[in-house]
Amino acid sequence: MPIGVFDSGIGGLTVFKEIAASFPKVDLYYLGDTARVPYGNKSKTTIIRYSVECASYLYHNYNVDAIVIACNTASSYALDTLREILPIPVIGVVQPGAESAVKVSKNKKIGVIGTSATIKSNSYLETLKSLDKDLEVYQKACPLFVPLVEEGWIDNEVAKLTVKEYLDDLVKTGIDTLILGCTHYPLLKNTIKGLYPHLNIVDSSVAIVEHLKNIKLNIEETGKRKIFITDESHAFDKLKNMLVGDIKTEKIELSDLCSL
Amino acid sequence: MPIGVFDSGIGGLTVFKEIAASFPKVDLYYLGDTARVPYGNKSKTTIIRYSVECASYLYHNYNVDAIVIACNTASSYALDTLREILPIPVIGVVQPGAESAVKVSKNKKIGVIGTSATIKSNSYLETLKSLDKDLEVYQKACPLFVPLVEEGWIDNEVAKLTVKEYLDDLVKTGIDTLILGCTHYPLLKNTIKGLYPHLNIVDSSVAIVEHLKNIKLNIEETGKRKIFITDESHAFDKLKNMLVGDIKTEKIELSDLCSL
Repeated sequence: MPIGVFDSGIGGLTVFKEIAASFPKVDLYYLGDTARVPYGNKSKTTIIRYSVECASYLYHNYNVDAIVIACNTASSYALDTLREILPIPVIGVVQPGAESAVKVSKNKKIGVIGTSATIKSNSYLETLKSLDKDLEVYQKACPLFVPLVEEGWIDNEVAKLTVKEYLDDLVKTGIDTLILGCTHYPLLKNTIKGLYPHLNIVDSSVAIVEHLKNIKLNIEETGKRKIFITDESHAFDKLKNMLVGDIKTEKIELSDLCSL
Repeated sequence: MPIGVFDSGIGGLTVFKEIAASFPKVDLYYLGDTARVPYGNKSKTTIIRYSVECASYLYHNYNVDAIVIACNTASSYALDTLREILPIPVIGVVQPGAESAVKVSKNKKIGVIGTSATIKSNSYLETLKSLDKDLEVYQKACPLFVPLVEEGWIDNEVAKLTVKEYLDDLVKTGIDTLILGCTHYPLLKNTIKGLYPHLNIVDSSVAIVEHLKNIKLNIEETGKRKIFITDESHAFDKLKNMLVGDIKTEKIELSDLCSL
């Protein structure tokens, strides 16, 4: 069963990398919608439309047997719609991340960070509460983390100060576990860990792989990997090379998506 | 003559504000393409297509007699195309900004900052050199400035440290004049001025108004102001209220743009 992974842009490559490493024989197709990135500041309707276009592209062109939404914003808003319209399993990042957090937290106080849209959607809050209604959940939008990662500033003074500015108050609530609710954030994991070494940090990309391992995958493939983007992007190339090396990237036309 | 102003999103409101203040009787229409913001990380072809769609919308629907491209990225890539296809004057931000800089610089050493796409286009460099081939021009892309402004972090410690990280080396070259080559950047003007008080800072929005004053405007209007956006945006509302108060904002469908 080939797997399709899509994201608004670059961040989902952290998920792609983890899946590729854990399932070397599965055929993997990645679509980064770099022409319309970021989704995090778009409205719900727009996010759903873009997500449907991305998932449909992978489903219709590559016969994927499962879709991973490697984007917290799209997972928060478009998961239900995609499950309705596609006849294959659709896996978001929210449920696996929330389940991991519940497993590791001892004091039942969990922090969630993400883009403005992800936090505003309350998707983590609601999923966590559905798993255990006694959890205390503290949320914080961190809109500067994505541009910091895309600039490659993941451990300099600006990165540390920005992490402190966003997280000091959140950590003061007494949380023992922090969900990185955005696929860019794993690249800031070491900086966050350095400032708050006592926190359990839940990385969506790792959580998704755990989730996929629980699904019975019928693997008869040769480990093909293909990456599509909707626009050329220097930041994408930089991060792609850093994370997954020299896998070929192919540009597709946005009109090919829109017409589906 | 009604004037149309467009930008990839929010930043152009600094230009809109200056024009509105200087031309109280001119009818002004603003289009912020918030569904596809930012343009700065898109390819040249995509930036031109989006710009044509925005300008055509204002021209066909509001009979504007002049278009101001209040976006440095779009000015850098799409100005020539827009001048070819529209039968009205099209004014970018690059030429006015470059002319202002040449006027105020005494040592002929000029710095230019902007998004990655603007800097990569070399549009300021080429325009400055065409005005005076003996100028020394130093350029620097500052991709984090836009998200900083949109987060409202314009004078805190992160803002100051980010400004220093980007500009210290640029200022060490001995420039006496700095062009803010992005319409978001005027909101960081005080922080930049505080760190480098000896610099002449050229603000595109002020430069454009000076440029418009030199064009003979045939004003027979009532000072109507209208703002259109292609997607709801919290950041847009915040900055709009801060800059131009309670002018009504109307959402238009992206499909209305794409079909032109």
